[in-house]
Amino acid sequence: MSQPFGHLDERGAARMVDVTGKEPTRREATATALVRCSPEVVTALRDDAVPKGDVLAVARIAGVAAAKRTPDLLPLAHVIGVHGVEIVPVVTDEGVAIRATVRAVDRTGVEMEALTAASVAALAVVDMVKGLDRTTSIADVRLLAKSGGRSGEWVRDD
Amino acid sequence: MSQPFGHLDERGAARMVDVTGKEPTRREATATALVRCSPEVVTALRDDAVPKGDVLAVARIAGVAAAKRTPDLLPLAHVIGVHGVEIVPVVTDEGVAIRATVRAVDRTGVEMEALTAASVAALAVVDMVKGLDRTTSIADVRLLAKSGGRSGEWVRDD
Amino acid sequence: MSQPFGHLDERGAARMVDVTGKEPTRREATATALVRCSPEVVTALRDDAVPKGDVLAVARIAGVAAAKRTPDLLPLAHVIGVHGVEIVPVVTDEGVAIRATVRAVDRTGVEMEALTAASVAALAVVDMVKGLDRTTSIADVRLLAKSGGRSGEWVRDD
Amino acid sequence: MSQPFGHLDERGAARMVDVTGKEPTRREATATALVRCSPEVVTALRDDAVPKGDVLAVARIAGVAAAKRTPDLLPLAHVIGVHGVEIVPVVTDEGVAIRATVRAVDRTGVEMEALTAASVAALAVVDMVKGLDRTTSIADVRLLAKSGGRSGEWVRDD
Amino acid sequence: MSQPFGHLDERGAARMVDVTGKEPTRREATATALVRCSPEVVTALRDDAVPKGDVLAVARIAGVAAAKRTPDLLPLAHVIGVHGVEIVPVVTDEGVAIRATVRAVDRTGVEMEALTAASVAALAVVDMVKGLDRTTSIADVRLLAKSGGRSGEWVRDD
Amino acid sequence: MSQPFGHLDERGAARMVDVTGKEPTRREATATALVRCSPEVVTALRDDAVPKGDVLAVARIAGVAAAKRTPDLLPLAHVIGVHGVEIVPVVTDEGVAIRATVRAVDRTGVEMEALTAASVAALAVVDMVKGLDRTTSIADVRLLAKSGGRSGEWVRDD
Repeated sequence: MSQPFGHLDERGAARMVDVTGKEPTRREATATALVRCSPEVVTALRDDAVPKGDVLAVARIAGVAAAKRTPDLLPLAHVIGVHGVEIVPVVTDEGVAIRATVRAVDRTGVEMEALTAASVAALAVVDMVKGLDRTTSIADVRLLAKSGGRSGEWVRDD
Repeated sequence: MSQPFGHLDERGAARMVDVTGKEPTRREATATALVRCSPEVVTALRDDAVPKGDVLAVARIAGVAAAKRTPDLLPLAHVIGVHGVEIVPVVTDEGVAIRATVRAVDRTGVEMEALTAASVAALAVVDMVKGLDRTTSIADVRLLAKSGGRSGEWVRDD
Repeated sequence: MSQPFGHLDERGAARMVDVTGKEPTRREATATALVRCSPEVVTALRDDAVPKGDVLAVARIAGVAAAKRTPDLLPLAHVIGVHGVEIVPVVTDEGVAIRATVRAVDRTGVEMEALTAASVAALAVVDMVKGLDRTTSIADVRLLAKSGGRSGEWVRDD
Repeated sequence: MSQPFGHLDERGAARMVDVTGKEPTRREATATALVRCSPEVVTALRDDAVPKGDVLAVARIAGVAAAKRTPDLLPLAHVIGVHGVEIVPVVTDEGVAIRATVRAVDRTGVEMEALTAASVAALAVVDMVKGLDRTTSIADVRLLAKSGGRSGEWVRDD
Repeated sequence: MSQPFGHLDERGAARMVDVTGKEPTRREATATALVRCSPEVVTALRDDAVPKGDVLAVARIAGVAAAKRTPDLLPLAHVIGVHGVEIVPVVTDEGVAIRATVRAVDRTGVEMEALTAASVAALAVVDMVKGLDRTTSIADVRLLAKSGGRSGEWVRDD
Repeated sequence: MSQPFGHLDERGAARMVDVTGKEPTRREATATALVRCSPEVVTALRDDAVPKGDVLAVARIAGVAAAKRTPDLLPLAHVIGVHGVEIVPVVTDEGVAIRATVRAVDRTGVEMEALTAASVAALAVVDMVKGLDRTTSIADVRLLAKSGGRSGEWVRDD
């Protein structure tokens, strides 16, 4: 094979950013998501009356597992350690509010792990209640705070 | 081991619903998601100037792959065939609108596959642009339409 | 490449048995496992006082998810649909008894899916309580009953 | 989204324990499992006459692979490096005895990796011989020894 | 969200082709690969003297497992049943010749499953012998024959 | 269970080599693969006229994702961090030349990660164009260069 890679213009080509030059430090990120539910679904959640089972337990566990699968889901995400995950789902009048916190000591931040955990926990809620109301939707998946790494502490201010 | 399962009250316990009594039929579901981006990110997207690479290509492929991983992500989702997936990401003034359509011939609907595909495509966009703006968020992950199965055609009307 | 495959003696070589000649039929299998726990752990389980969280919810969900991952774990297992899973963990004086039932309409039985689900649910229990007692062990992972397929109904009689 | 997470009582909620405060050290754990086989299956194993192929080779490889999939199978297990695995299956008069040793340099012990490796190697044996005897069962999956970490050396004494 | 998908030109955008209109039929495909090894490696293979262990057993099992992971590896591949796999690795004077045959009853061909199985079996061989010779390479991964589906029988003629 | 592991001769048995004694250092490896295409396919690639979509984007992303799945595919590969991946596919007169570079700071080399990434990127190209020409094959998957670790720098010289 001759040298086809010589004059290559790969502008715009996706790549996993090289982080081998970074030092591992303690990282933490918190993301939230909101599953918007109808009043009937909220009542069923509060009465523990969802036929498919314990919605919040499934959401918690799906969220923790999803944090670990982030590099499988996001093509350009790094393979890093995942050293602590907490998923807190809360039933509110609007539906289920989810907060996901991920912690790791590694070369890159865990923002995507937290956002993925919150998203998948929210999807798990939708999966549990869609038999009751198929309009159930997910709103406001977003980063709430992060710490660690070069850019240090950050808290969302909107 | 004696019979510990006799007097069991498993109300509320999560289970994968038995669909062996259903016939395989053609199913289709379409979900949407919106990645809210700042004007600067929208400009970078329009100028193909996102440093991590081709955002829409990554979103499309991440979405297709995620549709196939739905039973891995959602604890109670069935293992079914996935027989067609189309992810359409569009840059708008607000950010990136994503439409995911999933098709299968199987015993259960593909709504969760479409919602998962839309969510993960959206997360992939966030992953690509978060270096430009870490407030980028996901809004409005929801089912747009479905067809097939006992409940037949349905189109969201809000 | 010449024909190196001509005179091959592959006796003993592992292969995935060809089941393309079989018709899909409804299959069901039930397996059990017993996690042997110390009296202290049994008390903690009954008092909902295990620091890592709700043991039975985690066991149920890990078991359902594992049934779906059987072809990933067992090299020669077929990729089949998984159309219903129920994991019932019960705290007894001896520890946690687990019963896993898997159902599918497909070309091959789901005995390994049921055994894998019971095993992984048991491992999940061990993972939750090992901080309290690292001698916690798993006993008696075995098939209890199966139905469907050429060999029809079978119930263990020991 | 207002602050729904304020007054939360999450007692009993499953979480992945935060180990970011721990230092990586060399960890090792050994677990065993016993696949109980009928005399006919033991004879077939000794004669290399199991129709599905080389049982011990499949058990070894399934066990090594399973050690690596522990965080996928156990919801609360950490993502850690896996830096050495040895699976030793031995045919005895009772069936197949399996010993799994896992080694890693990381923030948490590898007990669950060793137990998972032993369990899945045992399941792989069952999968290979179940066509000969469907009563084949798994007994005594348990930790034999561990070293490394805060609690140091430990060897089972029963 | 208004209708951003109206005037879309998605020419060139990757999608999983919709096969829901196809009937499931019996499919078979055979692919081959050649791992080119130095004479020293061939001797070690013939003498069963590769330090990492039984190369052909690992190649067989890695190949079978890879056939099942094709939809995870190839973004646009369909999720289908995998109903029979046979991997035949043979040591020749040139290295290790691998033949992979995959069978399924489904809506789409299994050519990519056979090619993936052959490639990964070849990679597993390289992994086992690279400590002996890191120039070991893979040549000639290609489809040998297929049957089933609309295009029927086909055998490579070069 | 008595001591069945005493007199064991496990010569030839596959194991994951223990690397816990090694220090993490920066590793890099580059591998190449060539997808041999017919002139018609080369023309379609150059004209962006492959019906399944953007071949090079899919190849890039499949390659990056595959680097991360190496320990899932190769039974004896270690679980390590993956800290940078670049896949460069180039259309030449012969087909598509692929170059995969993987970087990590860890206890073992990333040669297999680079070879796996190049192979799967090549398989993704075959999957995209096989509808145009099913004789498309993969040639010359091989290591081009590596650095880091005990053996230091190495560049292929043939």
